[in-house]
Amino acid sequence: MAIVQVSIVPLGTGSTSLSSFVAKVSGWLEAQGVKYELTPMGTILEGDAPEILSLIAQMHELPFLEGAARVMTLINLDDRRDKKATAQGKVESVARKLGKIK
Amino acid sequence: MAIVQVSIVPLGTGSTSLSSFVAKVSGWLEAQGVKYELTPMGTILEGDAPEILSLIAQMHELPFLEGAARVMTLINLDDRRDKKATAQGKVESVARKLGKIK
Amino acid sequence: MAIVQVSIVPLGTGSTSLSSFVAKVSGWLEAQGVKYELTPMGTILEGDAPEILSLIAQMHELPFLEGAARVMTLINLDDRRDKKATAQGKVESVARKLGKIK
Amino acid sequence: MAIVQVSIVPLGTGSTSLSSFVAKVSGWLEAQGVKYELTPMGTILEGDAPEILSLIAQMHELPFLEGAARVMTLINLDDRRDKKATAQGKVESVARKLGKIK
Repeated sequence: MAIVQVSIVPLGTGSTSLSSFVAKVSGWLEAQGVKYELTPMGTILEGDAPEILSLIAQMHELPFLEGAARVMTLINLDDRRDKKATAQGKVESVARKLGKIK
Repeated sequence: MAIVQVSIVPLGTGSTSLSSFVAKVSGWLEAQGVKYELTPMGTILEGDAPEILSLIAQMHELPFLEGAARVMTLINLDDRRDKKATAQGKVESVARKLGKIK
Repeated sequence: MAIVQVSIVPLGTGSTSLSSFVAKVSGWLEAQGVKYELTPMGTILEGDAPEILSLIAQMHELPFLEGAARVMTLINLDDRRDKKATAQGKVESVARKLGKIK
Repeated sequence: MAIVQVSIVPLGTGSTSLSSFVAKVSGWLEAQGVKYELTPMGTILEGDAPEILSLIAQMHELPFLEGAARVMTLINLDDRRDKKATAQGKVESVARKLGKIK
């Protein structure tokens, strides 16, 4: 299972706000039944690496459909195969070491 | 105010786990009185861009003190000057457009 | 046409050197007949976004075959659809503005 | 010595072209006497990590002076302390393993 962060950034739109683009992508993910987590800097997805990359290829198209002419998509794919890793588990593992949870 | 994500990744440590390194950096931030948010893929900081970058320069040294010989530090600095932006505000702005909050 | 940078980083290998992993991936690209450019921080590919992401999904598997148990793959996909963009053209466009080429 | 890639991306400018912004930053680096390498996806710098981050803090300001209201700056800082690493050396090390140079 890979944990993946993706940030889809339309360029040259004339507006400094990106939230409507992010909302379109989030709404699309929900319509597909895909679980995701929104952070201040991106969207977190979990799953098999090839499936997630195929999903991101579709997400990357959405701002073009909204009129963007250039889109920069940043992906950080963290894939660990020696144990089952989850996005929630990663944060909890640090919190446990800091003595915040048991 | 910039919103910044930083991921500090020690390489060649012989262990696939990074959580003890992340906990050290988080503990150090708390000792400095710096507010941060931990996501599954990084640490979110807010503040003036030069101050945050100076802080990250110090964070980047910590894994070397723990014995790492190579450290890759990824930074995404999102700096908006036409309105006051916060990490929480970015996520809420999307949630509002999705009709999840008012 | 998208211009894409990909960096494939195996974690926890016990060695600070990554060049043998990069060479494996580069050799694989050459065996596939894929054109690429190597920079000090990644591999540059050009093509349709979905095809490049599908190719990267295969590249991402290679370090696991070499024994890595955790792989972090960083992707920056720059996709411009209002004009034909190439990796070489992007660098030349800046050089022209700096008066270094005509 | 760290090897660092930085990409400075102004958002909401109304133009899909970034080359004039990149040229401004490159011209500024040359005026400062800083050595850099331009790749299709960013600018490569070499030096001590804190000094490079301080330099990037200044580079990050330049698009604001040109009228941008939001700037996203992406940094990948690769810092190896067990041997002297250079940007050129990293690429040559891979080329040597591929049998392209001796």
